[in-house]
Amino acid sequence: MAKRRNDILRKKIYIVIFRSDTALGKLFDVVLLWLIVLSILSVVLESVESFRNQHLLAIRIAEWFFTACFTMEYALRIYSVHRARRYIFSFYGLIDLLAFLPAYVSLFFAGTQYLVVVRALRLLRVFRILKLTRFLSESNILRTALKASMYKITVFLSSVLTLVTIIGTLMYVIEGGESGFTSIPVSIYWAIVTITTVGYGDISPQSPAGQLLASVLMIIGYGIIAVPTGIVSVEMAKATEGSKRQCKMCQSPIYDPNSRFCSNCGVALKLK
Amino acid sequence: MAKRRNDILRKKIYIVIFRSDTALGKLFDVVLLWLIVLSILSVVLESVESFRNQHLLAIRIAEWFFTACFTMEYALRIYSVHRARRYIFSFYGLIDLLAFLPAYVSLFFAGTQYLVVVRALRLLRVFRILKLTRFLSESNILRTALKASMYKITVFLSSVLTLVTIIGTLMYVIEGGESGFTSIPVSIYWAIVTITTVGYGDISPQSPAGQLLASVLMIIGYGIIAVPTGIVSVEMAKATEGSKRQCKMCQSPIYDPNSRFCSNCGVALKLK
Amino acid sequence: MAKRRNDILRKKIYIVIFRSDTALGKLFDVVLLWLIVLSILSVVLESVESFRNQHLLAIRIAEWFFTACFTMEYALRIYSVHRARRYIFSFYGLIDLLAFLPAYVSLFFAGTQYLVVVRALRLLRVFRILKLTRFLSESNILRTALKASMYKITVFLSSVLTLVTIIGTLMYVIEGGESGFTSIPVSIYWAIVTITTVGYGDISPQSPAGQLLASVLMIIGYGIIAVPTGIVSVEMAKATEGSKRQCKMCQSPIYDPNSRFCSNCGVALKLK
Amino acid sequence: MAKRRNDILRKKIYIVIFRSDTALGKLFDVVLLWLIVLSILSVVLESVESFRNQHLLAIRIAEWFFTACFTMEYALRIYSVHRARRYIFSFYGLIDLLAFLPAYVSLFFAGTQYLVVVRALRLLRVFRILKLTRFLSESNILRTALKASMYKITVFLSSVLTLVTIIGTLMYVIEGGESGFTSIPVSIYWAIVTITTVGYGDISPQSPAGQLLASVLMIIGYGIIAVPTGIVSVEMAKATEGSKRQCKMCQSPIYDPNSRFCSNCGVALKLK
Repeated sequence: MAKRRNDILRKKIYIVIFRSDTALGKLFDVVLLWLIVLSILSVVLESVESFRNQHLLAIRIAEWFFTACFTMEYALRIYSVHRARRYIFSFYGLIDLLAFLPAYVSLFFAGTQYLVVVRALRLLRVFRILKLTRFLSESNILRTALKASMYKITVFLSSVLTLVTIIGTLMYVIEGGESGFTSIPVSIYWAIVTITTVGYGDISPQSPAGQLLASVLMIIGYGIIAVPTGIVSVEMAKATEGSKRQCKMCQSPIYDPNSRFCSNCGVALKLK
Repeated sequence: MAKRRNDILRKKIYIVIFRSDTALGKLFDVVLLWLIVLSILSVVLESVESFRNQHLLAIRIAEWFFTACFTMEYALRIYSVHRARRYIFSFYGLIDLLAFLPAYVSLFFAGTQYLVVVRALRLLRVFRILKLTRFLSESNILRTALKASMYKITVFLSSVLTLVTIIGTLMYVIEGGESGFTSIPVSIYWAIVTITTVGYGDISPQSPAGQLLASVLMIIGYGIIAVPTGIVSVEMAKATEGSKRQCKMCQSPIYDPNSRFCSNCGVALKLK
Repeated sequence: MAKRRNDILRKKIYIVIFRSDTALGKLFDVVLLWLIVLSILSVVLESVESFRNQHLLAIRIAEWFFTACFTMEYALRIYSVHRARRYIFSFYGLIDLLAFLPAYVSLFFAGTQYLVVVRALRLLRVFRILKLTRFLSESNILRTALKASMYKITVFLSSVLTLVTIIGTLMYVIEGGESGFTSIPVSIYWAIVTITTVGYGDISPQSPAGQLLASVLMIIGYGIIAVPTGIVSVEMAKATEGSKRQCKMCQSPIYDPNSRFCSNCGVALKLK
Repeated sequence: MAKRRNDILRKKIYIVIFRSDTALGKLFDVVLLWLIVLSILSVVLESVESFRNQHLLAIRIAEWFFTACFTMEYALRIYSVHRARRYIFSFYGLIDLLAFLPAYVSLFFAGTQYLVVVRALRLLRVFRILKLTRFLSESNILRTALKASMYKITVFLSSVLTLVTIIGTLMYVIEGGESGFTSIPVSIYWAIVTITTVGYGDISPQSPAGQLLASVLMIIGYGIIAVPTGIVSVEMAKATEGSKRQCKMCQSPIYDPNSRFCSNCGVALKLK
């Protein structure tokens, strides 16, 4: 009998924590989201020296309050889920664990308390909460487009890395240590800073030959920054295309999501 | 009788001030536009020290002349409009108020006179003036494209903010205060400067580990700068497409250039 | 009789100088192009102090040799062209004049000799020389795309300028002169440097509020840098599409603008 | 008889070294790839002073081990290939030679040992190794798109270079040597740094006129950075389109590369 009641309780907790299609489940998710945002804010503010000196106690209390919340939530998740092991080793399970573990570790090892910022990854959960809204389908188009572009992006990135290695080494030979190009890794770092058009200017060529090579690298970078954009644009256009409806009579594509008749054969369409 | 004449006067003022389809209405709009541009110019020039020292009186006179103009215009707008309250709390009404209010406030609180620069927002009125020209339809395509991309952009921006928070914190842990990463908010600021490829260089990583992480962030930024471009390109292509034909029966847009029937009401279409 | 011979000479010169469809005309154009490139190179090298000190005489001689060439060429052009006045006030005529005038002016006013660099504009003539090759048609597609985008770009640029004025003023109020924001024009310059993602770092915000506002500006810039790209992409796709021909028999697209027979059904095509 | 055995041996070596369709051939390629990566790593690490001081002997041994491997590989390639001269002067043959030659040259001329980094170019071989996977076809789309855009990119780049030369000279005249614009080549370098939105900030305008011209250049750069992106996007869309299959019965395009039946008419398709 007690076991039965226990089972019902577990099921109830499961529905509140894991699902978001009941009023209580939604409330839980929204509260959780705010706790995550606030806990990240407390970590961020703790690192500001003037703020830390004034409100050290408040920060400490808030910090441990959030850690307690996440620990309790994790315990409830393990308690209520059917296959605990599977949850623990899932992507979300590991993130949930990392959300409070660093806080306990920091008791023994100083300086690790900032690692709790991985809690930010929990914010990705927001996409799960909004499952029924338009956000996820948009996110899906993005994901499909990115996945389909993966191969092209790999080819592109390896070409860029080869280019950056060669030009970085050339700059090391041309400029030498006086202008800040103290070693090849630093020169490669400079080449990446340049080709991505970030351009800090902490290291910059001083000799005419170095400035010429840098100019060539920039013009090349100017040209090839177009490549990933072209890749993603095309894939995104295809993904958008792929999510379109089709007329069941004449197979012509339905462009307007609100169409009620096929634009080619005039047959009535079912609304999605 | 006086009331009647009053009403006619109000109507006349209304047509001149609010509309731009009469010669006088157009003249009013063009003069207003020039007043806005000149008043912004006077505020901008006032801030240049050498100019202020030489022409202080001229600036002051111009400043109060513009403020008087805008105050009078505001009074006339309230006087002539049918539903004054609705106008006052509308978007354009608030901007019109903000165009002269800071000037009066600056009599009591020094340093607030620069806030009159919000007058620049009044320049947006130029799009209303050019209502009948090609500009607005172009602006409409832009707006439609941006609106349709809003959901995708929200997903994109929240992912970027999560990424920037995590990498900013990591850099704070890796680099510490000596290289300028004095707190997590500053490190997040650095991460935004880097991922958007702005790259001021006021803060830049000095340690090998920091430079490696920065390189990874730049390469990631290089890849994902393509995403908003892809989003807007696709939406803009759709919006351009969408502005093509319209059904003559139900006014719904015809997306497919080869449609032979309206997708909304099923009426037969003439081919372009 | 002498007049007759004169006329024939003028015609011959005209064909050599203005046309490029004879062997001599082509040779003239290529030699001219090399003279332009070399004369620009001599101006550029003159500005390098170490080079000027060593080769001053050689530079001076080269400089006056090029000026003499361009002067003579200009005289021949005026002599041989039918309607001299029309040529003189045409776009190319003015550029041809500006190619040697500054050299003579610099005899009286020191420091103006660098203005001969406007000769670089003469390089645009290269597109005219290559008239019969593929380059010009490509350049036409670019021009069509840019022209069609002009309206959208105007709306876009005026929005960007309004944004930059407002944020520049806000930064001037927030940061003040200590961080380099010495006046509103300088702050607007900073905002342009930031929103275009150039980011020199000669001026950068120091206060938390300033860094927050800068972050917002960067994220906005990140989003709206996509807009001109989207505009040009769409217009370019349309221009490419628009320049395609179709076979009238089998409807298959004709990709090569010079094909005289349909590559699918072999029917003879009319040249566009 | 000995010649016969010799021929068989040469053929076997050829298959292992030049092909990658046997198990041994694949193993050879993978080992070679790792040797290339490790040898580049050793060169890169040698340039780091602290590392060089500690592990000088190990680096030297590794360096010569890699050089011996590549020399032996080169000898085997010449020995086994049919037409040795053709291989030696081919693109890959020259890269293979450059992979070990600088190491020997550095025995006589100090400072040239870093040139062995051209070994990185050998990594391009990876695309040949993966010939049968999806990578190469992706790389082909990229190459087709880039090749088709070549003409447009040439027109674009020559316009950019003309612009940069003229604005660089103007800045030299306006700003002069005090702000770092010491010569026209340096000013052109600055203009390239600005128009590509890299923006080091090692040279930046100080006078109001210079800052105004720089702002104009940045806004122009902002607009025309869209052009290469538009070009590549359109070409990439066309290349993607061109690599699509078509049903032989109804001519409808086959979007999914794995489909075995036409989605329109249901006819069986041959797999590519």
